[in-house]
Parts: sequence; structure tokens; C-alpha cells
Amino acid sequence: MNGAESLARTLVAGGVEVCFTNPGTSEMHFVAALDRVDGIRCVLCLFEGVATGAADGYARMADKPASTLLHLGPGLSNGLANLHNARRARSPVVNIVGEHATYHRRFDAPLTSDIESLARPVSGWVRTSVDSRAVAADGAAAIAAARSAPGQVATLILPADTAWNEGAGIAPTGAAAPARPVSAATVEAVAALLRGGGRRMLLLGDKALREAPLALARRIADATGAALLAETSNARMARGAGRVPVDRLPYVVDAAVKTLEAVDTLVLVGARAPVGFFAYPNKPSELAPPGCRIITLAGVDEDQGDALEQLADGLGVRTAALDLPSMAQAALPTGALDARALAQVIGALLPEQAIVCDESVTTGRGFFPATAAAPPHDWLQLTGGSIGLGIPMAVGAAVACPDRKVVSLQADGSGMYTVQGLWTQARENLDVLTVIWSNRSYAILRGELAGVGADNPGPKALDMLSLANPDLDWVSLAKGLGVEGQRVDTADGFARAFQAGIARRGPYLIEVEL
Amino acid sequence: MNGAESLARTLVAGGVEVCFTNPGTSEMHFVAALDRVDGIRCVLCLFEGVATGAADGYARMADKPASTLLHLGPGLSNGLANLHNARRARSPVVNIVGEHATYHRRFDAPLTSDIESLARPVSGWVRTSVDSRAVAADGAAAIAAARSAPGQVATLILPADTAWNEGAGIAPTGAAAPARPVSAATVEAVAALLRGGGRRMLLLGDKALREAPLALARRIADATGAALLAETSNARMARGAGRVPVDRLPYVVDAAVKTLEAVDTLVLVGARAPVGFFAYPNKPSELAPPGCRIITLAGVDEDQGDALEQLADGLGVRTAALDLPSMAQAALPTGALDARALAQVIGALLPEQAIVCDESVTTGRGFFPATAAAPPHDWLQLTGGSIGLGIPMAVGAAVACPDRKVVSLQADGSGMYTVQGLWTQARENLDVLTVIWSNRSYAILRGELAGVGADNPGPKALDMLSLANPDLDWVSLAKGLGVEGQRVDTADGFARAFQAGIARRGPYLIEVEL
Repeated sequence: MNGAESLARTLVAGGVEVCFTNPGTSEMHFVAALDRVDGIRCVLCLFEGVATGAADGYARMADKPASTLLHLGPGLSNGLANLHNARRARSPVVNIVGEHATYHRRFDAPLTSDIESLARPVSGWVRTSVDSRAVAADGAAAIAAARSAPGQVATLILPADTAWNEGAGIAPTGAAAPARPVSAATVEAVAALLRGGGRRMLLLGDKALREAPLALARRIADATGAALLAETSNARMARGAGRVPVDRLPYVVDAAVKTLEAVDTLVLVGARAPVGFFAYPNKPSELAPPGCRIITLAGVDEDQGDALEQLADGLGVRTAALDLPSMAQAALPTGALDARALAQVIGALLPEQAIVCDESVTTGRGFFPATAAAPPHDWLQLTGGSIGLGIPMAVGAAVACPDRKVVSLQADGSGMYTVQGLWTQARENLDVLTVIWSNRSYAILRGELAGVGADNPGPKALDMLSLANPDLDWVSLAKGLGVEGQRVDTADGFARAFQAGIARRGPYLIEVEL
Repeated sequence: MNGAESLARTLVAGGVEVCFTNPGTSEMHFVAALDRVDGIRCVLCLFEGVATGAADGYARMADKPASTLLHLGPGLSNGLANLHNARRARSPVVNIVGEHATYHRRFDAPLTSDIESLARPVSGWVRTSVDSRAVAADGAAAIAAARSAPGQVATLILPADTAWNEGAGIAPTGAAAPARPVSAATVEAVAALLRGGGRRMLLLGDKALREAPLALARRIADATGAALLAETSNARMARGAGRVPVDRLPYVVDAAVKTLEAVDTLVLVGARAPVGFFAYPNKPSELAPPGCRIITLAGVDEDQGDALEQLADGLGVRTAALDLPSMAQAALPTGALDARALAQVIGALLPEQAIVCDESVTTGRGFFPATAAAPPHDWLQLTGGSIGLGIPMAVGAAVACPDRKVVSLQADGSGMYTVQGLWTQARENLDVLTVIWSNRSYAILRGELAGVGADNPGPKALDMLSLANPDLDWVSLAKGLGVEGQRVDTADGFARAFQAGIARRGPYLIEVEL
């Protein structure tokens, strides 16, 4: 078998079941190899940012990597923004990038570029295969690297001749580095701090936001009087009835500082010490108050669930009773289509085991309270701040979990970045309900313009924040990409459309005119 | 004035009249500064690949740089593919990338990444401003770098606090390095070779494809019996009635090798020694025959026009008579909508001084003969092989030349990469007629799959090359982005639609069902 086939079979042997791709000439042998190999599903994306965002969404829900297949430096470039998000989500991704044949690179043909320089900023692991007999082992190493705690993007660069020359057969998948256990001494130190009184807070991120660790964290907080909070942007949160509701640290710096102002002891569990998403004149970068003691119970490469178990055991509360929200029959709103009404509709109609892909940006900041008692669901956010993840992430989540409804809550400005993903939803008949918050502006930037102190903007500046003139027509865009949709501009219109969108199978889009 | 305003005023003083942008928080002060500064037009793009492709198209037609304004590493990432094309076109671009405030970077906030590592592969010049008093001088240096021969992408990274702190005022634009003159010895050596007999060829690229150098090259070829050919992909070619028609080296390796097989002396003028766009098993990377003597009259950083003048003088043919095509009244086709009919319609109806932005890929390979006697026009191609340039390049060309019709010939698969550019065409009411070749496949890859020897592809492989299921509906896509359009599927339908599209002002789209 040639190198390409040895790699394809190594991927399958290593548990990689999906390849999100937009291939080109240098990847043709690999495409042909995938054609001959069972056990790997190829999903075509009409832009590489869709492929990489889908790989991120897949990894968040499958807890294992998909592969991508991208076309040289430019194909990788187009996928970088969502690989940046994947990196911040600590999603395992086997990111395969085709390259010119080894002997062809020195001629600097038009598509030649420094792929490693492009890959490094988003990758925890980068390797260029040197020949066709190395490529399977390189693929196995990429899988192991991607799966090593806390999960990362592993970029394998595949010169075309390493694909078409004779390979060395399937390589065994190496062992991924597991999440490290937290020492008893750390657990005891945290327990002592939590017992010690004062204004203590557990800040949760990463895997600590899954159902079981969240319950442990709630018990620990209840037993010690500590507050419980999640990071601002999270890869995946278990939410809904029967699960622990937890608020997030606000995005806006002033609000975040206020949230943390009285905290004297901050215990991090899969979270990082909180910093501003951006810097602003005369506002702090570090959000915890000066003098606040910050201690890590478990870092992102440590076993957060085990650490919380140890801590709960130490406090004697591992199985303590919890007061959890039960499923509420929420009323549907009528009348004005405001943020409250949007949240109410989602909270009332979200189906059991829904996967919410949330790139609502400003519109969605208040969605959490109204959805806390919805049926159990997972909530996926934009982790790296690189807009254009939502539609692709929904593709990946739907491929990972074909039996669950994906609800894609999407700001209009961000949605335009990777609108091509709707076509993949149509082609693969993915069960995704997309809701576009059509406020026809980069609304977040109006606040940011004031936030950085750039007051009294004139028409030229405001034009740069506006998506009007002409208005985007999302129903036509979706139609152009093979997805049916409708536009609504009232609360009960949205409720009816959402209900209908949930009831059907396959992709559907609702444009909500705000 | 703050650093942002000092930079904005420096750009204007340096002749930068346009900023193609998709800004974010870290760029808000710069946006506010642009608001206060006359002489620079801000053009909003709904995806950064549109902004960078527009900057490339603008530079090709204006022969000077526009600026971009991109949002941190991810914004740059989204713009990289078209910066790659700009690099290959040697287009001057002042590429401005916002960054976190200098003191904020060490906190590794979510959007933080290694921007310089991302920028280097596409940039001839990269600098991160260190403080607000340096930023104007850095901007002036970026303009000079961008304009230095042969033209390049100069990336200026702008930490937010260098924008909002007090600046040092407008900086004078530095001198750009001009194209170097070619030595008399080189000219004499080339003249001797051309006079020497044998199968000689002048291979032209870069600035040698403008009207005056082309005429000189034709005179030199006529006088010496040398053949004349252009590189496969060119940033800008002067074409049409009254100008020298010149064929391009074919893209397909076998055809290129055949074209060059009898050449024993190849003289390069703004061209590089020809190499395959890709490598293929058992095919050469270098396309000129073994033993062919290759000599450079003028490299891309040398004055190609002057070199041709010197050479023509040496041969005594600087003002020799030329046999140029005169304007032909071509007939419009009827019946089958094949490649010949497409070319015939374009050749018959192209208006004087049209700018053709050609990303036709496979569909357009035969367009040159039928358009050689059209009214004088410029023809702009995809130079770096990174698809998704066409629609943005048309934006930039139309902004550079508001009085000329832009005809954007666009393959469907490539067009999907940066479809967002249609919205900017609508917002700015740009005079662009877009023609989509809707063959619903990555047609080029069917050939490439065979070309690399991956024979007998199965359905999984073929699915990765197909844009069908569902079919893209370009008229709806355009409508969603504010551009009117129609679909045609006959030769006379195309002719009528093209004529109507040429006659109106403002953006319009024709989807040609192939």
C-alpha cells in the first residue's frame, strides 16, 4: 500500500472516524486512499474554515479527534481562525495539510509557502513527513499528540510524494499522555483554604463543566460557603434540569471586576486566572482584585474530575444531596421580540439532549437564566474569540451526535464568516436548527468603541460597524446553499418557527429580525 | 494626536487612499482616527479574505498600495490566503493588523497568538510597533517597504496602546527602493544569444506584460525570430485591439513541456524559470527541456521596461512597425453553451477599458484567442493558486478604477471561498459584472486525480470533487448579499444577459449553468 493508504488505515486504527476536508491536487492520493478504506467518513466543506470549525465541534462532543484534510499553506491559512478556537477549546484535532512533493518544494511553485510557520501558532504538535515509509508512524504520533491531555491541534504536513510512494503499512497508535492526577498535598491545601473562611470562589473551566464534576463542585461550594462560577467562554457545559446551574464570569471588564471584587481566595479548576478579553485604557488586565489569593486545584492538563472527587472526599461531601432545578414548563412569550423573549422561547422549547452551539455574541449574553431549567443539554461556546465558528461547530457536533438536535445560535456578522457551512449541513442532511440574530451590525463593536474611549464616532466609523445598506437576507443565503428557512420579527412568530424547526429533521434556518 | 491618528495621517501623506477592513476591538482607535482624517476611504468587508484580495486587486490597477485593517491573529489568518496571492502578484499592500496592548499580551487572553509567525510567510516586511511614538514612522516604513520593487506585502502589527497613547505626529514617507536598472553587459549577452540562432523564446511576466514593454518584446521577437510567451499566471496583462497578443504557458504539465520542448534558449523578462504548478509522479518539476539555456534579461526587482528598451535599441528595432490586431466585430453565438460560446460572448461584448478579473480556473483556459481583438482591456489572474481571489480582486479593481467596467469571471467552487465580497460590491455600488461558471464541481480536480495517477476513483472520492447535492444557487446567494442576478443556460441567453450586465452600472451577477 502507498503512503496515503498507510496513513488512512492508521487513522482508522487510531479511532479517527471522520475527515472534514477541502482537498486539492496535492491531496488527491490521500482522497483516493480514503476512498479505498472503510471506517472513515469524508465530509466536504466548501471552505477550510468550515472543515476546521467542524473538527472542533466534533471533538467537543465526541471527546476524540476527527481529521481535517487541507490544501497546502493557503488551505491551512483559511482554516487557521477556527483552529485557533480549537486550540483555546483544547479540542483534539488531527490536522492534515498537503504539501508539494519533497523534491518539488525547492522550485518555489506558486502555492509554496512556509506551512510550519503558519501551523505553529495554533498547533501543539507539528511535523512534516520526510518520506512515504514514515507517514503512517507520523500519523499515529499525530493522533497520540492530539489526544494527549488537555487535547490539542496536531498538524501533520504531508508532501505529495510521501502519499504516492510505497508506505510501511499501518502504524500502531501511540499512547496519549493522560490527564495527570493532582497530588493529595494540593487537594489538602485547597481544602484548608476553603475551610478557612473569607470570600472564596471556585472558578471552573474545561472538563470541570461536565455533569459529574459540576455536581461535585456544587457540593464542595455548599459545604464550604464558597461561590461557584464558570469562565466566560467554555468549550462545553452540561446544563439544564437535573444539573448544576452555574453562571459565567461576564465578558465586560467592569462587570467582571465587580463580580470578583469581594473574592479573597480564588480556586481554579480547569480554569485560568481571569484576564480581560481585551485591554482598555485605565482598566486592569487582571480581573481578580489585587491581593486575591489564586490557587490551582487542577490545571487543564490535570484530571479535574478526580481532583474534585478527592476534594469532596476530603470534605466528606462526595454524595451530599443537591438542590437541582427540575424541568420547568415555561411559558412562551408574545409581543416584543426582545432579548428576554428570545431566551424564553429557547428555554421553553429546547429539546432533551440538545446541543447548543452558541455564537450569539451580544444577543445571547442573557440566555443562561431562562435555559437553566430546560431539558438536559450541552452548551458550546466560542472559546478563542475568532468569529465564524458557530455554523461549522454545528456541523461537527451534528456529525458526532447524529441522534441529538443541534441548535445553532448565530450572530449575523459572525455567521457571514463561514456561511458556506450551511451547504455541508444540507449535503449531509445534518439535524441542525440555525437561528440568526439579525441585528445588522457588529453590535459588540459599538460597545467596544465606547469601551476603549473612542467617543463620538462619526459616520465613517459607524459604517464600519454596520451590516446594513444593503441588508443581508439570510433566507436567500440559506436557499442558495440548499437550506430552507424563514424570517420572523415577532416573539410568537419566533416561537412558532422555533417549534417547527425543532420538530423537523434536517437543517433549517430562522432569521430573527431584531 | 494619538498614535492611531498619527498613523492614519501618515498613510494619507504617503499616498494610501483606501483601507479595506474588518476591524475589531483592538482596532477601534484606528477606526476612530480614520473617521477624523480626510483622504482615506474605508471599505468594509464581511470577511478578511475579501479585504486582502481587494487590496491585491487595487494594487494591481492603481500601482500603489491600499491598506488593510485586520483584527489580531485570527483576522490576519482569514486574510492570509489572498495575501499569499498578493505576494505572488508582487502587489504592494500595507497590511495593518491590530494586536493586544503591549502590556496585555503576557496574559495570553483568548485572542492572543503569534502574529509575526503567521505574517512572515506572506510578507516581505514585518514589524510590531513598540510604542505610540514609533507608530507613524513604522507606518511610513511600511509604505516604503510595500512600494519597493518588485512590490510586496508589508505587515505592520499595531498593539492597541500604540494607537491610543500620544503619537509623534505625521512621519515622512521613506523612499521606496526602485526597480534596479539592468546592466549593459546583460543586455548585450542577451542580444548576442537572440541573434545567435536556434530555437529561442522570450518568456514574459510581471511588468513586462504592460502595453509598452509587450510591444518592445514583440519587436525584439520579430527581429530575432524568437518566440514570445507569457507565464501561466500573471498579475496583469494589457490585451485587446492595438496591443500585442501573447499566449500563456499552459497550466497542464504535459502541454507546458510540449510547448517548450524545442526551445534551446529561454530569455526571462520579469518571469521565472518555468516549473510545474504541482509535482506529478514521473513528470518533471522543471518544464524547460534538459540542456535549455536559461538567461534572465530582467528579474522582477529590475526595470523590465528599461531592459526591453535597451535590448530593442541594441537590435535597432525600438520603433519598428508592429502587426497588431484591430478591433473585430465578432459574432454572437447561438445554441450550445460550450467553452467556445462563452469565449465568443466575452470577446464580442467586452467594453473598452474593461478590467477582467479571471478566476475561471478550468472553464476559462480557452478564453484568450476569442478576446485578443476585443477593445483594449486589462486581464488579471489568480497568481498564487490560492482560490477565492476573484470576487475580492474585482472589489479592489473597481475601487481603484471607478470609471472602468470590471468583469469578474468566476469559477463556482472558488467563488464560494469569498462570496461575502458581493456584499461589498453592493454597499459600495461597484461597477462589477460577475459571471459564475456553474459546473457544480471542482472540475480541475477531476483532471488532477487522473494526473497524479489516482485512477478509478470511487464514489467517496468523487463526492469530494462535486458541488452538487445540493446544487448551489448563485442567484439566491447574490440576492442574500444585495446583488441582483439571473441564471442562464443557453448561449444566446448568456449573450443577452452579458450585454445587459455590461450596459448597467453597479454590481450584477450572471450564473451560467454549464
